[in-house]
Amino acid sequence: MATLPLLDDEAAGPEARAVFDDIRARRNTDYVNNFWRALAHDPALLKSTWERVQEVMAPGELDPLVKELIYVAVSTVNGCSYCVHSHTAAARAKGMTPGQHAELLRVVALASQTNALAHALQVEPDERFKA
Amino acid sequence: MATLPLLDDEAAGPEARAVFDDIRARRNTDYVNNFWRALAHDPALLKSTWERVQEVMAPGELDPLVKELIYVAVSTVNGCSYCVHSHTAAARAKGMTPGQHAELLRVVALASQTNALAHALQVEPDERFKA
Amino acid sequence: MATLPLLDDEAAGPEARAVFDDIRARRNTDYVNNFWRALAHDPALLKSTWERVQEVMAPGELDPLVKELIYVAVSTVNGCSYCVHSHTAAARAKGMTPGQHAELLRVVALASQTNALAHALQVEPDERFKA
Amino acid sequence: MATLPLLDDEAAGPEARAVFDDIRARRNTDYVNNFWRALAHDPALLKSTWERVQEVMAPGELDPLVKELIYVAVSTVNGCSYCVHSHTAAARAKGMTPGQHAELLRVVALASQTNALAHALQVEPDERFKA
Amino acid sequence: MATLPLLDDEAAGPEARAVFDDIRARRNTDYVNNFWRALAHDPALLKSTWERVQEVMAPGELDPLVKELIYVAVSTVNGCSYCVHSHTAAARAKGMTPGQHAELLRVVALASQTNALAHALQVEPDERFKA
Amino acid sequence: MATLPLLDDEAAGPEARAVFDDIRARRNTDYVNNFWRALAHDPALLKSTWERVQEVMAPGELDPLVKELIYVAVSTVNGCSYCVHSHTAAARAKGMTPGQHAELLRVVALASQTNALAHALQVEPDERFKA
Repeated sequence: MATLPLLDDEAAGPEARAVFDDIRARRNTDYVNNFWRALAHDPALLKSTWERVQEVMAPGELDPLVKELIYVAVSTVNGCSYCVHSHTAAARAKGMTPGQHAELLRVVALASQTNALAHALQVEPDERFKA
Repeated sequence: MATLPLLDDEAAGPEARAVFDDIRARRNTDYVNNFWRALAHDPALLKSTWERVQEVMAPGELDPLVKELIYVAVSTVNGCSYCVHSHTAAARAKGMTPGQHAELLRVVALASQTNALAHALQVEPDERFKA
Repeated sequence: MATLPLLDDEAAGPEARAVFDDIRARRNTDYVNNFWRALAHDPALLKSTWERVQEVMAPGELDPLVKELIYVAVSTVNGCSYCVHSHTAAARAKGMTPGQHAELLRVVALASQTNALAHALQVEPDERFKA
Repeated sequence: MATLPLLDDEAAGPEARAVFDDIRARRNTDYVNNFWRALAHDPALLKSTWERVQEVMAPGELDPLVKELIYVAVSTVNGCSYCVHSHTAAARAKGMTPGQHAELLRVVALASQTNALAHALQVEPDERFKA
Repeated sequence: MATLPLLDDEAAGPEARAVFDDIRARRNTDYVNNFWRALAHDPALLKSTWERVQEVMAPGELDPLVKELIYVAVSTVNGCSYCVHSHTAAARAKGMTPGQHAELLRVVALASQTNALAHALQVEPDERFKA
Repeated sequence: MATLPLLDDEAAGPEARAVFDDIRARRNTDYVNNFWRALAHDPALLKSTWERVQEVMAPGELDPLVKELIYVAVSTVNGCSYCVHSHTAAARAKGMTPGQHAELLRVVALASQTNALAHALQVEPDERFKA
């Protein structure tokens, strides 16, 4: 259960519905994810978040799949169940292979382990890491 | 200051020193990072961690730079200062461009934002995300 | 499912039941939340936690609704599903409007984003922030 | 030390410098914080982040001081040293009294404690919390 | 629902099945936990993780129950629902009494509270803590 | 630098000074840690926190050293530099051996790794973990 009811198209106001329509058009599907339906209670935040996702996740110097892998990594460390599910699905849709998924998990697990060790040891960064 | 003194080559036992030598050989440098010098108090953990890093970060279905970007993302979310410094430096050494660094930060910032929103909204994952 | 069974009034000992009664009296309801029923396995911790909540969340220089908003923010970042639900409900009970809820989420999302950027950039605090 | 050098006005490009000027004008000071100088390596992100801060933190249904308190709470839980410093300073500049600061810390400490208990107990949210 | 389907014995390859068999033999049960069945998609990671658990959690200078309590503490702070459940159960299987469980929760709750205060206060470590 | 100045004995009010005196008496030292000197701005919180630490960390069904190890584990995962330093020092003062410290770090590192994997896999807790 969510802290705000999911808004279907009727319940959403015209500004939110316009975002729903854009989601459908860009994703070539009728389906609008629960996240957007909950966010629709704040149509301006819905709009700016959706637009930001389009802009940041677009091809650039990093390709879209690499960006999704980073998104999954962040969501995993934040323990965000919804986001791990949605962005793992998105990574698959963008071509993530089972082998790439396995390697992603290995890196996330390793980094979590050495992060914990560095926190426990409280080692100062080496001078040579300076930008 | 660290919770354990950094061990120089003399203070480190032979098992730790052998790892230091392997670090030097594989990285083609005389320098051994503070993290490994602190970890040297537990030579077996030093050895297994160093070997695991070599294995996980090697080229596979994901290339080594992509793995470093994921490592930086995890370390950022965990707030691990040492690891952000060391793996940002490692990513640069593996060819990360300023533009790629900027895109990495944009994705990490965006994901942190939507993770927070999903936690606040407590939206249930959509059925269609099912594996 | 919880790691400890929820205790109903009969299963709870007299010390826990006294806290349940105080919860009912102060909240003017018969209902005792699951959290308190799980905590009842340690009646002393139940009592001290409940009393601490009453003391800290009482009107002071900050009003109770502002305190609830801060509580929701902390619970969101900690990814605590139970606490996000219970304190969002508590904030509503104390008068939180949909508009205030939306602004709370915007601030939490923005702060999460800039926190991530600051962690990635490892910027030192400015001298002028000194207390 | 930061992972990117702080850019002074000369080193910053014209787009970043325009943001620096806006920061100076709106804050009525010559000083530009380290965070913005590090972020200036990505002028577009600098600009969108600065504008978002202005928009989200402006007076609305919550007053600006309440928003700063929430910002400090989020930054505290995320363990973001830079952000705790800068937003505690900002809260003081917006009128936070020592007594309000003390109450903020009490709520953050209490919520962190009950969040941990709820995670340890894994209690399911009560049906009545449903939105 | 998981991001990868749980593999039963038939679906798992021979390398994963060998780990399942080792789990059964060492635990003297027919049951293999969901975590291992999900991890079986990466048989090498399954094997190395399972072996690492056996090695790290074995009796040493700390007894196995103390190690489980630490495991539960870490899992609680990381908000890992699965791990809190599985390691609370493991601690019970290793003899954790209700009183020890209660004390564990008190320490975790207290530490979470003072951690939050230390983050909010940004106090520098005392010189005398130096290793 | 801290967000509040550390209070020496003169600057602290009589209520805070009484806590300082109790710290000195119980620890048989003249030294009062920075954390308590920063917390002294809220004498009531200082007093209740100090008293809570004495109560929770006292010998019970878990011995004081085990409690310190759990405290270090929680502080490590929360990335609390001050607390990792102070409680690692406290654990040493209570007799933690280098070998116990090493095992603590191994458990914390392992748990962090499997917590990350469980978050990435989103595995549901097994029915048999039910309390």
